[in-house]
Amino acid sequence: MTVKQQMQPLPLADVKIADAFWSPRLEVNRAVTIPHQYKQCKATGRIDAFRLKWKQGDPNPPHIFWDSDVSKWIEAAAYTLAAHPDRALEKLLDETIDLIVSAQQPDGYLNTHYTVVEPGRRWTNLKDCHELYCAGTLMESAVAYVQATGKRKFLDTVCRYTDYIATIFGTKPGQKRGYCGHEEIELALVKLFKATGRDKYLKLAKYFVDERGRRHPHYFDVEAPGRTPYPNMPPDNNYTYFQAHKPLRKQDEVVGHAVRSMYICAGMADVAALTDDAALLRACRKLWDSATLHKMYVTGGVGSNTTGEAFTGNYDLPNQSAYAETCAAIGLVFFAQRMLQLEADARYADVLERSLYNGSLAGVSLDGKKFFYVNPLASSGNHHRSEWFGCACCPPNIARLLASLGQYIYSASDSALYAHLYVGSNAKVRMGGSTVILTQKTNYPWDGAIDFVIRPARPMTFDLMLRIPGWCRKYKLTVNGKACRAPLVKGYARLRRTWAAGDCVQLVLDMPVERLAAHPAVAEACGKVALQRGPLLYCLEQTDNTAPVGSILLGEKAWLTARFNRKLMGGVTVIEGEGLTPDAGPWKKALYQEAPKPRYKRVKFRAVPYALWDNRRGGAMLVWLPRA
Amino acid sequence: MTVKQQMQPLPLADVKIADAFWSPRLEVNRAVTIPHQYKQCKATGRIDAFRLKWKQGDPNPPHIFWDSDVSKWIEAAAYTLAAHPDRALEKLLDETIDLIVSAQQPDGYLNTHYTVVEPGRRWTNLKDCHELYCAGTLMESAVAYVQATGKRKFLDTVCRYTDYIATIFGTKPGQKRGYCGHEEIELALVKLFKATGRDKYLKLAKYFVDERGRRHPHYFDVEAPGRTPYPNMPPDNNYTYFQAHKPLRKQDEVVGHAVRSMYICAGMADVAALTDDAALLRACRKLWDSATLHKMYVTGGVGSNTTGEAFTGNYDLPNQSAYAETCAAIGLVFFAQRMLQLEADARYADVLERSLYNGSLAGVSLDGKKFFYVNPLASSGNHHRSEWFGCACCPPNIARLLASLGQYIYSASDSALYAHLYVGSNAKVRMGGSTVILTQKTNYPWDGAIDFVIRPARPMTFDLMLRIPGWCRKYKLTVNGKACRAPLVKGYARLRRTWAAGDCVQLVLDMPVERLAAHPAVAEACGKVALQRGPLLYCLEQTDNTAPVGSILLGEKAWLTARFNRKLMGGVTVIEGEGLTPDAGPWKKALYQEAPKPRYKRVKFRAVPYALWDNRRGGAMLVWLPRA
Repeated sequence: MTVKQQMQPLPLADVKIADAFWSPRLEVNRAVTIPHQYKQCKATGRIDAFRLKWKQGDPNPPHIFWDSDVSKWIEAAAYTLAAHPDRALEKLLDETIDLIVSAQQPDGYLNTHYTVVEPGRRWTNLKDCHELYCAGTLMESAVAYVQATGKRKFLDTVCRYTDYIATIFGTKPGQKRGYCGHEEIELALVKLFKATGRDKYLKLAKYFVDERGRRHPHYFDVEAPGRTPYPNMPPDNNYTYFQAHKPLRKQDEVVGHAVRSMYICAGMADVAALTDDAALLRACRKLWDSATLHKMYVTGGVGSNTTGEAFTGNYDLPNQSAYAETCAAIGLVFFAQRMLQLEADARYADVLERSLYNGSLAGVSLDGKKFFYVNPLASSGNHHRSEWFGCACCPPNIARLLASLGQYIYSASDSALYAHLYVGSNAKVRMGGSTVILTQKTNYPWDGAIDFVIRPARPMTFDLMLRIPGWCRKYKLTVNGKACRAPLVKGYARLRRTWAAGDCVQLVLDMPVERLAAHPAVAEACGKVALQRGPLLYCLEQTDNTAPVGSILLGEKAWLTARFNRKLMGGVTVIEGEGLTPDAGPWKKALYQEAPKPRYKRVKFRAVPYALWDNRRGGAMLVWLPRA
Repeated sequence: MTVKQQMQPLPLADVKIADAFWSPRLEVNRAVTIPHQYKQCKATGRIDAFRLKWKQGDPNPPHIFWDSDVSKWIEAAAYTLAAHPDRALEKLLDETIDLIVSAQQPDGYLNTHYTVVEPGRRWTNLKDCHELYCAGTLMESAVAYVQATGKRKFLDTVCRYTDYIATIFGTKPGQKRGYCGHEEIELALVKLFKATGRDKYLKLAKYFVDERGRRHPHYFDVEAPGRTPYPNMPPDNNYTYFQAHKPLRKQDEVVGHAVRSMYICAGMADVAALTDDAALLRACRKLWDSATLHKMYVTGGVGSNTTGEAFTGNYDLPNQSAYAETCAAIGLVFFAQRMLQLEADARYADVLERSLYNGSLAGVSLDGKKFFYVNPLASSGNHHRSEWFGCACCPPNIARLLASLGQYIYSASDSALYAHLYVGSNAKVRMGGSTVILTQKTNYPWDGAIDFVIRPARPMTFDLMLRIPGWCRKYKLTVNGKACRAPLVKGYARLRRTWAAGDCVQLVLDMPVERLAAHPAVAEACGKVALQRGPLLYCLEQTDNTAPVGSILLGEKAWLTARFNRKLMGGVTVIEGEGLTPDAGPWKKALYQEAPKPRYKRVKFRAVPYALWDNRRGGAMLVWLPRA
């Protein structure tokens, strides 16, 4: 087997989004969320930590993961500059970057915690202390920043840091054979390799992938005697928590901390693609199947267990106690994106879309100022978004995902142009030595009609590959107004022709309200259905319903309609239907009594997209409706 | 209206329990739980805190509520001495008490935290710092100890402390018009009054009841400028949290922290009874109705909200996210016990029994070493008992409740002898100037047959009042083998006759499996039933069931049988039945798919008493079963 990456995403700068659903969210992300997050980073000391002024005895010591929050904020902000030049923001970024650069040590090292709180203790607790993770987030943000602005200062600083890291870790004599307890540096090194072309960064990524969980004694035990214990961390021998219980190539089940798992899966796929590593790709496929066939919520959330923010056993997907960290859903998007480029199979895009439109997007409020860390599928009404967290990974993560949405819509190879997501946009595609301008217009996900106009620089033969989503069972295709048939290749309708400027393609996806069921082994969804329309999963919120949402049953023949409500949350298609609710009849004064014969009455209910829940009055919420 | 206490509980020493259900639990409580809790108090520094050796800069400062944990442990241990003299335990108690006594300051003050951690800061933060609460628990334990052993040393010390407290608080010039943020001292002062006959203690109790929430500006605001803020406490103006938003006599809804609410309700009932305070009793009745008609779980648990460990609105009783602190269920037992003595109405005993056999008893494992703080009515399998807690109020609270069970079974007035609970026991009852020996034999709660033998010292006319539980709809009564009818007076069957030595009474309560429904406004119980048999509420645990417990529906005509299983958890009556579970039929590889037409198959299930859940392999649990 040879590993061949089938296609490449388009550079962010080449995709302009103009979309009824996404553009308002991206604008809030840019204009509200990113300034809000800067303020939070500033107010909590995360920015000023880079001044290195903290001294023993001072309050608020720079925390082991603070640097990563600032990095992810820079990355998010940098992405917005591509579509929306903003001098003031660029100036703020430059100042912040200057501050970070000023914190670099003479030997290249750059980490606030270890520089001021634990000087002389570098690399002594790889297991717990996120040191290489923080380094990786610096790489991601530096790459984003140079691509947005062309300014190399930050990248140069980070390269110097990475060069230093490459002297510390590796298989040469005297080097540490360690790796980070919180993976991410692997995918970051690949980004840095792609941005700089320097092989050493890819090699270092490959080293971290190769080394993980490989040796006996285990590296986390090797470093243990010299480690300062960090409070509230998993026990040393809980290797599965860190995906370090065996070599990555031998792993076939996603385990442990879900965000770390998704990040290393993405890094593995990156390394597999660039080093032609078939064994690694096989492991990626197995881990993909494990995550998406056995351990994923219908929201695209993963990691059901609060304890350890972790995966548990197959089909263990509780609703109300779901953890489903926003970062883990985003990590699944990253993993899906890489598998999709490698294999050109729409099943990856299906999961990417599910996780993006539901489990990830739920992470931020409509006003852009509040965030979910934990994403349950049912709530008694006591779960709400917060403005920030002590452990603040999720807010800048959703911000950078939204700001980089343009990267997920299209891919191109020499002979094919793929549309994975249906998002109104204008793309400049460099392919086969020429350029194609592709315009997409749609009201998706409220509507299934998508119009493309293709404008190649000169007439050009290529495959236009349009994803037929897994949820869609009927669709129509027309080219220049004429119905046409197209073979379905791994979930993509393939339109092969010589395209001329102005050619129009229309795809109409049938988008009825669907009742989804979960695999029968998912205990908490047993006998229940979830409502989905297009890519959007729906939920019932108490504020929309008169009957308690927990009391509503859905009959098999109950009507269900989708209706666009212009006034609701800026315009939302709601699902309305008729359910049954117990009719208690006369009731004694008592709180509990012998159960009267059950009687039901009809009740109208309304469901809203899951991603938009908790944007109005707080109250109960649920995704899975019992069947009558 | 005149407040008249209808009856008095029997002294603990006069009731010997010999019961198939309770005796093994009481023995584990005595032989395992109490030594285990001493070890925990010792290991965590709670005992040695009384040495007053802690200095600024030392680790593990004596916490504001540590003293109360030791007090409650002493109280529990003292109660066991009544039924089970134990020299070693008494020696350990004497030593511990000597240590406590040694910590008393020259002016009588006795509190480890304020003596060593915040010297000079006494009484500056009544709102947050549990100072009077800790004092109250010393009173309760000192009374228990003198009653068990006759030794007055501890009582004398505590009286000296209380005398000092009485100089600080009150309405005289120069006194503080404050009261504790965490009520309990009110009921404790009444115990101290009863044990010593000293009016000043009752007056001080009445002062605390009268003063609470009465004045403007609010005392918590008066003390605020001089207060050292204590971390993680409710905001100053959250008066409802402390039941201090208005005078207690004007309150008609239970609000705020549930344990505090139940303790002050008990204290109010005590003061009402002893001071002939009709307005206070009216408030108690309103608060009782509020708690038990609108805010109580079917387990007898109260306080549904984790945030603030608090009551919320009427009928807001979520299952999985239930808080229902063990201490709150126990507090409801205390409140019920006092209302019952005042009003001789079985509705109080019904709640007392529900809370005792379910919400309270669940607080301790069968092995006596693990405790629930939080008592949900559904679990995905991730909720388990712990050996101890940083905030360790619940473990010694359940220990003292079990050790004092004998106080709850009977009451007597001059002309009536009440049996509230059916627990095999032998009681010496002093009434009408003479003595009656009452023997109760029963296999309750597994069986509804209860046999009494009455042995008055001389033939004596009185009413034997046997509680007919609210859950019972059919019963038979015989006296000396002959069926008899007895009028039902406020839930008690009244047998009025001249009793002679050896008279036998048999009560047979019909005890079928019941399906309970909750008031239709309880959203999370809507369309569902809970199984109850006798006083025991049942639940489904995954370990007993093949179908996922969340997937089981109960048809209206499904059979349900109760069967005693000698081998299960030391002998338990289980409920077995036939439910329906979705039959998914063939399933694609996918985790989610379009819902197939629903089909159900029959499935046998087993339910066990809620109080015994989580004593075997961990797994999902639920109380409320959906109706098919």
